[in-house]
Amino acid sequence: MSAAPAPVVPKTQKGVVFEKNGGPLEYKEIPVPTPKPNEILIHIRYSGVCHTDLHAWKGDWPLPTKLPLVGGHEGAGEVVALGSNVKNWKVGDLAGIKWLNGSCMSCEACEQSNESNCPDADLSGYTHDGSFQQYATADAVQAAHIPPGTDLAEVAPVLCAGITVYKALKSANLRAGQWVAISGAAGGLGSLAVQFAKAMGLRVVGIDGGPGKEELFKTLGGEYFIDFQKESDIVGHVIRATNGGAHGVVNVSVSEGAISASTKYVRSCGTSVLVGMPAGAVCKSEVFDQVVRSTKVVGSYVGNRADTREALDFFARGLVHAPINVVPLSTLPEIFEKMEKGQIVGRYVVDTAK
Amino acid sequence: MSAAPAPVVPKTQKGVVFEKNGGPLEYKEIPVPTPKPNEILIHIRYSGVCHTDLHAWKGDWPLPTKLPLVGGHEGAGEVVALGSNVKNWKVGDLAGIKWLNGSCMSCEACEQSNESNCPDADLSGYTHDGSFQQYATADAVQAAHIPPGTDLAEVAPVLCAGITVYKALKSANLRAGQWVAISGAAGGLGSLAVQFAKAMGLRVVGIDGGPGKEELFKTLGGEYFIDFQKESDIVGHVIRATNGGAHGVVNVSVSEGAISASTKYVRSCGTSVLVGMPAGAVCKSEVFDQVVRSTKVVGSYVGNRADTREALDFFARGLVHAPINVVPLSTLPEIFEKMEKGQIVGRYVVDTAK
Amino acid sequence: MSAAPAPVVPKTQKGVVFEKNGGPLEYKEIPVPTPKPNEILIHIRYSGVCHTDLHAWKGDWPLPTKLPLVGGHEGAGEVVALGSNVKNWKVGDLAGIKWLNGSCMSCEACEQSNESNCPDADLSGYTHDGSFQQYATADAVQAAHIPPGTDLAEVAPVLCAGITVYKALKSANLRAGQWVAISGAAGGLGSLAVQFAKAMGLRVVGIDGGPGKEELFKTLGGEYFIDFQKESDIVGHVIRATNGGAHGVVNVSVSEGAISASTKYVRSCGTSVLVGMPAGAVCKSEVFDQVVRSTKVVGSYVGNRADTREALDFFARGLVHAPINVVPLSTLPEIFEKMEKGQIVGRYVVDTAK
Amino acid sequence: MSAAPAPVVPKTQKGVVFEKNGGPLEYKEIPVPTPKPNEILIHIRYSGVCHTDLHAWKGDWPLPTKLPLVGGHEGAGEVVALGSNVKNWKVGDLAGIKWLNGSCMSCEACEQSNESNCPDADLSGYTHDGSFQQYATADAVQAAHIPPGTDLAEVAPVLCAGITVYKALKSANLRAGQWVAISGAAGGLGSLAVQFAKAMGLRVVGIDGGPGKEELFKTLGGEYFIDFQKESDIVGHVIRATNGGAHGVVNVSVSEGAISASTKYVRSCGTSVLVGMPAGAVCKSEVFDQVVRSTKVVGSYVGNRADTREALDFFARGLVHAPINVVPLSTLPEIFEKMEKGQIVGRYVVDTAK
Repeated sequence: MSAAPAPVVPKTQKGVVFEKNGGPLEYKEIPVPTPKPNEILIHIRYSGVCHTDLHAWKGDWPLPTKLPLVGGHEGAGEVVALGSNVKNWKVGDLAGIKWLNGSCMSCEACEQSNESNCPDADLSGYTHDGSFQQYATADAVQAAHIPPGTDLAEVAPVLCAGITVYKALKSANLRAGQWVAISGAAGGLGSLAVQFAKAMGLRVVGIDGGPGKEELFKTLGGEYFIDFQKESDIVGHVIRATNGGAHGVVNVSVSEGAISASTKYVRSCGTSVLVGMPAGAVCKSEVFDQVVRSTKVVGSYVGNRADTREALDFFARGLVHAPINVVPLSTLPEIFEKMEKGQIVGRYVVDTAK
Repeated sequence: MSAAPAPVVPKTQKGVVFEKNGGPLEYKEIPVPTPKPNEILIHIRYSGVCHTDLHAWKGDWPLPTKLPLVGGHEGAGEVVALGSNVKNWKVGDLAGIKWLNGSCMSCEACEQSNESNCPDADLSGYTHDGSFQQYATADAVQAAHIPPGTDLAEVAPVLCAGITVYKALKSANLRAGQWVAISGAAGGLGSLAVQFAKAMGLRVVGIDGGPGKEELFKTLGGEYFIDFQKESDIVGHVIRATNGGAHGVVNVSVSEGAISASTKYVRSCGTSVLVGMPAGAVCKSEVFDQVVRSTKVVGSYVGNRADTREALDFFARGLVHAPINVVPLSTLPEIFEKMEKGQIVGRYVVDTAK
Repeated sequence: MSAAPAPVVPKTQKGVVFEKNGGPLEYKEIPVPTPKPNEILIHIRYSGVCHTDLHAWKGDWPLPTKLPLVGGHEGAGEVVALGSNVKNWKVGDLAGIKWLNGSCMSCEACEQSNESNCPDADLSGYTHDGSFQQYATADAVQAAHIPPGTDLAEVAPVLCAGITVYKALKSANLRAGQWVAISGAAGGLGSLAVQFAKAMGLRVVGIDGGPGKEELFKTLGGEYFIDFQKESDIVGHVIRATNGGAHGVVNVSVSEGAISASTKYVRSCGTSVLVGMPAGAVCKSEVFDQVVRSTKVVGSYVGNRADTREALDFFARGLVHAPINVVPLSTLPEIFEKMEKGQIVGRYVVDTAK
Repeated sequence: MSAAPAPVVPKTQKGVVFEKNGGPLEYKEIPVPTPKPNEILIHIRYSGVCHTDLHAWKGDWPLPTKLPLVGGHEGAGEVVALGSNVKNWKVGDLAGIKWLNGSCMSCEACEQSNESNCPDADLSGYTHDGSFQQYATADAVQAAHIPPGTDLAEVAPVLCAGITVYKALKSANLRAGQWVAISGAAGGLGSLAVQFAKAMGLRVVGIDGGPGKEELFKTLGGEYFIDFQKESDIVGHVIRATNGGAHGVVNVSVSEGAISASTKYVRSCGTSVLVGMPAGAVCKSEVFDQVVRSTKVVGSYVGNRADTREALDFFARGLVHAPINVVPLSTLPEIFEKMEKGQIVGRYVVDTAK
């Protein structure tokens, strides 16, 4: 138990809300939520902004959102109140909001620690009000434990983007020394993936396009870069660079064509992991090729509690950095606009105090 | 060493040869091949006939065949001669010709027992003359050891069809008690898959169409049958029957649409295995669905030496039977014709003596 | 929600309690416990009696028990009350008490579904009052869901003994068609292990001693029996019977020597699973042998939620039967006495109504 | 095919031979062996000296050696002649002699790439004349492919010591970011293990004793060192340093007690790998502890072809260095003497030209 006086929690707070998908994003005064018996209340200091938040707002994914909705699922802050049944947290602990807010803990997926695949999953910033507000509730079992002393702005993007690419790398089932290709290597997810891959002892081929991308990639620890704006035969190039194809691929680009190409440059018996979800995209792979070369195409979603702890540990040990731009929460509509236009480099983080 | 007198091997024999893809299939007198130092010579008694043999003849797969070619890769017989460097066989042993005739034993795939994925794989009835003849050569390391006393006609289809579906079931990575869906459950491959699945303790949903199929399926040990000629919502039906989707799917149907459907009715975190290869087929899966449900689409080719031994062991213990029709080798052209028209029920086996 | 009237829960009940380890086992009137917010209250109808209950009473394991204690951890009954925070149960559901009553859900073990390895695990009949009473509390997440219509007396031993051997078989990491040796094949745990192994498609070698044991073993589906009272070279015999050694071993005998022998007759690259825990026993394996043959010695404890559901599913489908003797709860002291003398055949189940 | 003129191979050469176990080690003129059809002849330039060579000479392992014997199984040189059936080598290639000279390629172990567990394994410097001579034969499938440009003296110890510890680390089944304890961290095997572990992204706890050991350990990339000469509670210390126990342990110390201790400080659900083989050693683990914490004790032998290629790749990329002392082959008896007295620091490599 913390001996410090309990923090004073206000009745209202600032947050960004929308009433209908695609409707106005209003930065305004809203009530502070009350934690249920199994929940904690977190004073959110910073929140990352993710492509998923854009999809939630637009409502272009097959799964309907809660409405009205406060989005956001990469929130970092301190615990300020505990539900009556909570034992594994105390006021003052650093805590993170992540995509999976809670799950049933009783279904076949939950039983096996695949809580993000629970059909009754509760999703932050999607079916549960998220981190684009100053105070948010989170399930005590699923909320992320952030190590003391962590920079809350820098850790924010790790809570979704970081965990997601870390999980994807695990899903590729690779050994140190093998080649992983990151398709979309210089974007928000990709730049984290390169660093995690490096820390895992993997050799990284990056695929991305445009000026400055190769330099960023190399700085992060990448070994071989292919610029899709300059190279027409991506498949052949990856195969040559890796002496037979990448043992694994992490697809974080938003191109449907790039996803299908990954099924061709993955090595025999290797695994292409689907992570990024361009709206309406279909992965097309040739059956003959997939059979004869015994390749795998594997979907990977967000991480579970273990993936979360592990990814945060890599961050806390200084092995992964997210290049972030901190901006006021009130400017969220402008960030969404940039995101839609594909003008984002690195990761935006909103400061909920502004 | 066998004390019996060495068998007399003739200079010429009967076999079915074609000079060019899609050209005449000639049943005629041809030379008996001589084993290389690392090969054995097998007196083939019976050979199964597989869809792959039809593809080899037609030449409609991306990989070119040897020409002229003797097809066939499910041959069962006795060893009649040994290459100078062969130690693990003796004359008189029962031996089987399988799809993978030999491999380099030095590449990354071979090192890890994935010899069928070797880029230099030598394929029986495709790049190496196969089992549609009375005497065939086979690499001593890769040739199948058939237990003494085995019925050579009945075991023939196990040597490719059996091993292939057994490997596919292994590739689905299932535990006893889980549900596997067999798409194409009543065909030549499917009927073997149902039996192997049953012997592995799996619960089997079969999908196929037409009269008599359900009865055959149930006789083989299947638990739940869905007739695609009567049911429009296959996906929903499988999900209901298995209380959430099949944990694994083995795709042996020849329908591209059925393959893509399997990616929808497979359970979250489950695996859909591609085995059958309709010419030119593409597997299409929705990226959003595959990510959110973390499903896998996995190509599975033919088995390796361990898969071969294991599959033959299930057969030898009486757990798997192949319903066969034995016909003269000379009638092979007619079988190919029936196969092209989709008129085959069960598995044809040719008797090389006729 | 159940529309039926809520059951009337009495204030007191009959149970068997002891005040100190090894002290008198008193069958007497005790208070009915009240469920905490995260617990359910189960009206226990039947409870299995396990060797662990004897250890709990005697206090001869390194882990101290709660005192005074109501033992028992194989209880089957109906839910009669719910804690305020419980969502995944309703009154009237069939529910089971198992060894793991609850865990922290936050540690590294819990995160990965290894809740039984949680350092703060709460254990039924050990650190939490168990099933040797008419009404017991259980954590809602961990309590076992028993399928409707199940015979509550017969299922009782499955809740610990059954799940434990099922988990051990999973820990042996075997494929259908491989050999598993069950050391102690005709005892309470062993007879369940043989049946689960058979249902998984394994080939079973049983080792046990005494008249009637082989017949029981064969009735349960075992393939090859070795009587240690008649055979001096157990190691050699297992190796011959399995053509090279058992791929896996499940050690449920209570002999330290038998455990060490299992490290010798397990096949190269195979796994000997430790399950039974003779007080103070040490597993001794020769380092040279274990290295050169690359064998594994693996501890397996009780199952998690998934193992529980799966083991109960095998039981519900009629694939596993536990030969039980139903006796009054009040006779528990006599059962413990028999157990200490090694006079138990099959599994005793106490009826809490008597 | 190499266009260069074939090297002239002499009829006789220098080598170190012993006629009986423990007898004189004679450095003398002996015949150059002739490769069999499946073998290559390697001009050995350097050979590492391993504890196993000492055991082979003394004959204190349960497996008898060939006699008379040329020991050595870490030989590096160039191919100078090919057997008639060899396809995967050409004269002039760099090649390595490793412990496993050849295997049957037909047994259950070989089928699954566990050739070192083949009951008919042929062992360099044990059942087949090894690398303590200028020219040695090696099976073409099993001989190690050494990348062009590699320093042959430095790579020598990688061929056994390096591959062995790399395999052991793989056998511990760890993920990047987890803790591995190396028991014997500053010895010949240990110092390689620390480097491989670091390259795999593992966090390393080293246990060893004596001055200079901690400094060496830290230089190699180790994170936390425990000196057994200063610390009495090794078990407690490892558990504290790793916040719950090492996820994996690699036992390369020659102490039986250290091996058993590793079963206590390994984390719940973790793996202690046996690699070093003190003569007559027995691994003793408490059954209760191993069951309740579900720990594994796993034997790991030498690597297979894939392990060999992978370990050499880490070396070729500069991630692993072996601190070696190069001495003349003629001084081998003195090295054995030092080794017996435990006076070896780092790894001795003999130069066959002297």
